[in-house]
Amino acid sequence: MQKDPVYDIVVHNGTVLTLNEGFDIFNRGLVCIADGSLKRVEDRPASEPPPSARHVIDACGGIIMPGLVNTHTHAAMSLFRGLADDLPLTIWLNDYIFKAEARWLNPERVYTGTLLSCAEMLLSGTTTFCDGYFFEDAVAAAVQKSGMRAILAQGIVDFPAPGVPDPKKNVAEAARFIEGWTGKTPLITPGLFCHSPYTCSEETLKEARRVADEADSLFQIHVAETQEEVKEIQQRQGASPVQYLDHIGVLNARTLLIHAIWVNEADIACMARHRVGVSVATESEMKLASGVAPIPEFLKKGLAVGIGTDGSASNNDLDMFQEMDTTAKLHKVLTLDPTVLDARQVLALATRSGAEAIGLGKQIGSLENGKKADLIIIDTHKPHLTPLYDPVSHLIYAASGSDVRDVIIDGQLVVRDRALLTFGLEPIFDSVADLARQIASY
Amino acid sequence: MQKDPVYDIVVHNGTVLTLNEGFDIFNRGLVCIADGSLKRVEDRPASEPPPSARHVIDACGGIIMPGLVNTHTHAAMSLFRGLADDLPLTIWLNDYIFKAEARWLNPERVYTGTLLSCAEMLLSGTTTFCDGYFFEDAVAAAVQKSGMRAILAQGIVDFPAPGVPDPKKNVAEAARFIEGWTGKTPLITPGLFCHSPYTCSEETLKEARRVADEADSLFQIHVAETQEEVKEIQQRQGASPVQYLDHIGVLNARTLLIHAIWVNEADIACMARHRVGVSVATESEMKLASGVAPIPEFLKKGLAVGIGTDGSASNNDLDMFQEMDTTAKLHKVLTLDPTVLDARQVLALATRSGAEAIGLGKQIGSLENGKKADLIIIDTHKPHLTPLYDPVSHLIYAASGSDVRDVIIDGQLVVRDRALLTFGLEPIFDSVADLARQIASY
Repeated sequence: MQKDPVYDIVVHNGTVLTLNEGFDIFNRGLVCIADGSLKRVEDRPASEPPPSARHVIDACGGIIMPGLVNTHTHAAMSLFRGLADDLPLTIWLNDYIFKAEARWLNPERVYTGTLLSCAEMLLSGTTTFCDGYFFEDAVAAAVQKSGMRAILAQGIVDFPAPGVPDPKKNVAEAARFIEGWTGKTPLITPGLFCHSPYTCSEETLKEARRVADEADSLFQIHVAETQEEVKEIQQRQGASPVQYLDHIGVLNARTLLIHAIWVNEADIACMARHRVGVSVATESEMKLASGVAPIPEFLKKGLAVGIGTDGSASNNDLDMFQEMDTTAKLHKVLTLDPTVLDARQVLALATRSGAEAIGLGKQIGSLENGKKADLIIIDTHKPHLTPLYDPVSHLIYAASGSDVRDVIIDGQLVVRDRALLTFGLEPIFDSVADLARQIASY
Repeated sequence: MQKDPVYDIVVHNGTVLTLNEGFDIFNRGLVCIADGSLKRVEDRPASEPPPSARHVIDACGGIIMPGLVNTHTHAAMSLFRGLADDLPLTIWLNDYIFKAEARWLNPERVYTGTLLSCAEMLLSGTTTFCDGYFFEDAVAAAVQKSGMRAILAQGIVDFPAPGVPDPKKNVAEAARFIEGWTGKTPLITPGLFCHSPYTCSEETLKEARRVADEADSLFQIHVAETQEEVKEIQQRQGASPVQYLDHIGVLNARTLLIHAIWVNEADIACMARHRVGVSVATESEMKLASGVAPIPEFLKKGLAVGIGTDGSASNNDLDMFQEMDTTAKLHKVLTLDPTVLDARQVLALATRSGAEAIGLGKQIGSLENGKKADLIIIDTHKPHLTPLYDPVSHLIYAASGSDVRDVIIDGQLVVRDRALLTFGLEPIFDSVADLARQIASY
């Protein structure tokens, strides 16, 4: 008689990067999963067969690591990927993106665009993302379908927005979203997202903060993204954007500051005092020519920093591997110091540190007993990943999203041998292509 | 009775990016190939069936474009990919790379390492590369096996080098290489590669120039790569590296200046006067923290600029798509101007302009009647390439090497449905992994 399997999934025969505090690496790694959580993460003698499980996955000598955490997206903006590039930010935003959003967005399209982005993220190794957009109920429905983990936030701006024609109701709409999705499904954590200190009034920001705190939700905001913003806030409020947010009392540890490019020493000290999380979005910030966030300074101050892709209308992809690569290299060349942001540091940003930045540090971001079973397997049997002296080096400097073979989230296989298991791609492709034809010929 | 096919290969049902001078794009493109050359490149009415050919390839709505030209590699350095990262240049070079080269290189290993790089380049859409290394005969043998087009150069330094223990014979060895490979096979063009103005004496540089000119070969040299180099040459020669090379008479139109990062206005004017080609290597230069070459200034002066990856020990991959993406974005953020280096300009750098920079502009770099049939097909039926408003935007900002489906070089299919047709990968993987184990445990 066969014994009942002990585990739901066992992954073996690969190098396990735990991303735990000691950065333990197990060259003959074994990961055992039951009830959505990690039960064993360890080195296994080559002589010992893997423990019994419903599903035994052979990593074939590849890399087993925590799923990547994308700390800043507007997932549905995949609908506008490549619609407009190489333009000054104001023209790109006002003449293309805001117009396209106002003209074309509805819940169904946001659902489709989000599914498209979930497909892209899953197939490139992202297991958790932190989103802010409009029609966020539709985003949540798509995320539920996809099997991804996410922090989802309804956007707040003080002008008429898609789905929220009356800006007076913007915070109430976000509050409704949080209430509706709190405790609804274990993979979705609702939050709110104030667009910026220059598009939200002091009253709006304070009210949003109150709502977020009441629900113990993450308060996200774009801040200090451009020099123009800093100038404008300085003129209007007599303080830098970060210090203005501090003065009005909206900064605390349940805050994610996005971009934080044009910040000075006092701003960083203020961010550290409040223990806010920070999300950089290197490639998008480069493409829009916004500037470069001082990541090494953030890390020196002990801030939890995550890496986001931003929306794919300004990136134009959601591949976190390329984001890690570019982030590491950009800071080296700007400082003319090749030791800045080494491969381990950057891998931590995209996993454990990113998870901390968005308030999920206790659940995800590393492979440790008791944490959620969110992990990916990298196929290293490829020319560009040969030879293999150091798996961490490869992940940052040579791998790309297409090297991800399998993806497990919350103990469920969602990608197997590069095939998406949770939903079909063809209807999404057709529907998005159809919309793009309408947009292009409008 | 069936008619004899008119063409060897016909590619249809895709968007053809010609990269001709007018940047013509054919949405229902057709490319006809015979005798290794392009015979027809045009738009085809949807009603018309494709012309008869021995091999008809359906691009399935993807992108058909010139193969990418990688203007700077040390292909065999794939053997040392990821051996050492995040280190100061001098430590990386002297303590790791030079030592590993001296200890481990031999013709057989250079052959294997080059084949590994050829596989990586082919599978990511590069059809031509410009290489400089040691044991270059072995490099040439590997390139011949791979089916790639290349300019290959024997390296010249004034100290004992792998395969050239007596530096007095360095130029003679390069001359021998050029003589041996001139006219031997249509895909390989031999040249020579002086390492730098600080590792080659004036006599060596002049003699190398003489040899190159006599054979009408490309003279490659790393120049103005670091601030230290500029300082050293300024002290030793009383001139900047570029102007020193000018003074001693080694600059002309058959010259490829590699890196050219720390150049001033007078240097650029001098480069333009001699109509030299330039190869940047953005990602490697970022990773080594060397600096950033002023590409926009080069283009303003009409210089032919190409993009190289450099060796994969300092990159750490040979994916020209990522190189294009990073190059475009880096210059935007450095100038804080998102219009700098737009997608079309960058695509031209990696194709027609790169071909010009290495002296192959008449044969390759664009899809035009009479040019060599070097082209690639991109599969756009993927989440990260959906929707498709603008194929050029996708190639620069969203695609990566793994989106390349088919590769044709000199009219021969060398990659079909992502499978390499010219050689087997498994023996290469085994052999490189075996060497890496020896190197790692040394």
